[in-house]
Amino acid sequence: MRKRTPTVVLAPDSFKGSLSAVDVAAAMAAGVRVALGADVRIVQCPLADGGEGTLQTFLSAGNAEPRVIHAHDALGRERTARYGLSNDGRVAIIEAAEANGLPHVADVPPSPLRADTFGVGEIAVSALEDGVDEILLCIGGSATTDGGTGMLRALGVRFLGVDGRDVAPGGAGLGDIAVIDESQLHPRARSVRWRVATDVDNPLCGENGAAAVFGPQKGATADQVRELDSGLGQLAIALRTAYGADVLTLRGAGAAGGMSACLSAILAAELVPGSDLVSETVGLRSLCADADLVITGEGAFDAQSLHGKVVQGVVRQTPPECPVVVIAGTVRLSAAEIRAARISAAFSIARGPAELCELLDNTAELLREATAQVVGLIDSQWSRPASTPTHPRATADSPS
Amino acid sequence: MRKRTPTVVLAPDSFKGSLSAVDVAAAMAAGVRVALGADVRIVQCPLADGGEGTLQTFLSAGNAEPRVIHAHDALGRERTARYGLSNDGRVAIIEAAEANGLPHVADVPPSPLRADTFGVGEIAVSALEDGVDEILLCIGGSATTDGGTGMLRALGVRFLGVDGRDVAPGGAGLGDIAVIDESQLHPRARSVRWRVATDVDNPLCGENGAAAVFGPQKGATADQVRELDSGLGQLAIALRTAYGADVLTLRGAGAAGGMSACLSAILAAELVPGSDLVSETVGLRSLCADADLVITGEGAFDAQSLHGKVVQGVVRQTPPECPVVVIAGTVRLSAAEIRAARISAAFSIARGPAELCELLDNTAELLREATAQVVGLIDSQWSRPASTPTHPRATADSPS
Repeated sequence: MRKRTPTVVLAPDSFKGSLSAVDVAAAMAAGVRVALGADVRIVQCPLADGGEGTLQTFLSAGNAEPRVIHAHDALGRERTARYGLSNDGRVAIIEAAEANGLPHVADVPPSPLRADTFGVGEIAVSALEDGVDEILLCIGGSATTDGGTGMLRALGVRFLGVDGRDVAPGGAGLGDIAVIDESQLHPRARSVRWRVATDVDNPLCGENGAAAVFGPQKGATADQVRELDSGLGQLAIALRTAYGADVLTLRGAGAAGGMSACLSAILAAELVPGSDLVSETVGLRSLCADADLVITGEGAFDAQSLHGKVVQGVVRQTPPECPVVVIAGTVRLSAAEIRAARISAAFSIARGPAELCELLDNTAELLREATAQVVGLIDSQWSRPASTPTHPRATADSPS
Repeated sequence: MRKRTPTVVLAPDSFKGSLSAVDVAAAMAAGVRVALGADVRIVQCPLADGGEGTLQTFLSAGNAEPRVIHAHDALGRERTARYGLSNDGRVAIIEAAEANGLPHVADVPPSPLRADTFGVGEIAVSALEDGVDEILLCIGGSATTDGGTGMLRALGVRFLGVDGRDVAPGGAGLGDIAVIDESQLHPRARSVRWRVATDVDNPLCGENGAAAVFGPQKGATADQVRELDSGLGQLAIALRTAYGADVLTLRGAGAAGGMSACLSAILAAELVPGSDLVSETVGLRSLCADADLVITGEGAFDAQSLHGKVVQGVVRQTPPECPVVVIAGTVRLSAAEIRAARISAAFSIARGPAELCELLDNTAELLREATAQVVGLIDSQWSRPASTPTHPRATADSPS
């Protein structure tokens, strides 16, 4: 018998196409109960990778309170936008796509040159006025390629041409930027820590850059891609001139239409892997500090999972002596790869031959059952008499 | 770090349609090596449920040496038949179907009335002359419905009619049996322990009896079923008259054409659940006595698995403090049912959505991977520093 109630931390990503991270954690918790009944401390900590849905995960998990403001979409049309305030009020979680998201402008023909991030800046201003110390910006799914100029404009910065006039908003004006005037910059803009969650490594410009790789998804023609790419190049020159910052070599600066270029050069924003940012913000490390078992999971556990995704973040935040188990819809890594990643085990929710749709339709139930198996197996060790041979102290020190 | 090399016992059934029990155990062993490298003691103990294939499992696993003799099939045609001698020479493992199996007479029209078990008796005689102390008889897959009279005839027993003449062989003669003359019974027939592996509960006679349930599979028409059923009834009367044994109420006497009726009444054979018989014969209990983990498995893990099948036998032979894990092609039991059966966990070899044929074609590889996950998870506990909170002694007694 255990002398102590074990702690199981459930820190999954969502199962895309079937269950949110919150629902995944709840289904896992039900499985833990099946295996251990009431004699267990369960910590549910649904996670996200900093991409779309991250804000919702924070809100649903009760890790942040929602704020709703009037802002503008990528084409300057009014819309309400949400962001989150951490329970201690110190961190604002902003999902840029709430303002500049592609879906919000899907009702009209794409305007890749005109679309801008002004609305994201409006959210940031509101957060600054909430008095936060840190702004966590989740980007991705954007309709914009403006290098973040629109956002900085909302924060009071002016981008001027050689004629001293404001250049056109959006990507269209980037090529004309000669001078950056920050005299009207929001007074708190530099008093907060800016962190941008990225999950891509693309540079700002060039064949792997924001325009070339993501422009077409935003409706940019080949000509427009070229115009946007050279515009971002001009912005980089202006930023280097004004701030000595080289955003051309900044890894990940190509995410979300170069949004982090201005944030990095003007506001010293850090670009951070999304999953680390999320797990730090929810305090996963301290939640896992005294865990006896940490279970994470996602729809597909593959090589990508070990690069900036939730699973990797969980492994990083868990003490080495605590087992980390992955429960996934599909496991595509070999046993050797799984062990090399410091993961004790990875199991699929499949219980035999099954179509994808069967797994998608029954994810919650299958997760409960799979979790019960994992916990049941570990519990067979937790519950072992201390004198059983596998226990090192017992074999070494115990009276027989 | 572990202070001691753990022992993992691999005791699977075959995965019907894809891998023999021997190959399943080998694939599992490869998985254990992936997880633990050389620092583990692996005991491979492939099992069977006493049905067809049991002899082959004994032979392939090196638990018995093969003997080959000239015998006769169910229709009296010469054929070679194998049986096994345990390595210590004390137990003969006889698979009845080697002589009276249905496949051996599939080349001619069925003769359900004439088919008999004489050839099985020939194998038994050879085993007696090997000097064994025990005969383990695996029945099933038979072409016969003779109540075991043919087998006893080969052992020297005569079944006589009212006219004092030998009745006709096979099921046809059963109705004429009036007297049983054992004056010529093989001298060693009663000096050995007879045990019959059964995996059915059917009685000898009646609507659930040997003739009614299994007769049609052997080609018996409705009329022949009636004749065989009343013949077995007459045999039962003769056995009660001669030995005071009531085989009509004997559970499992309906297996293999009532073969165990004569064995039970005349030679005091015990009917035993097949899986228990096999696991006892290979000494599973002692192999599991100091095991740190026992892994079993079969193609489909369902309610049947807990009734006379290998998995149930393994659970029975394993000390309660040692975890038993099932790895199966398909898991059809709920987590609650699995725990109720004293099984720590059950996992499918499936790693995600997959067709049955994909699992069948890759069983060995999938078994290796699944086993590596199970062992990796348990090892995370074996390898824990003694001071970790989940360890009862450590939390209770250890200096912190």
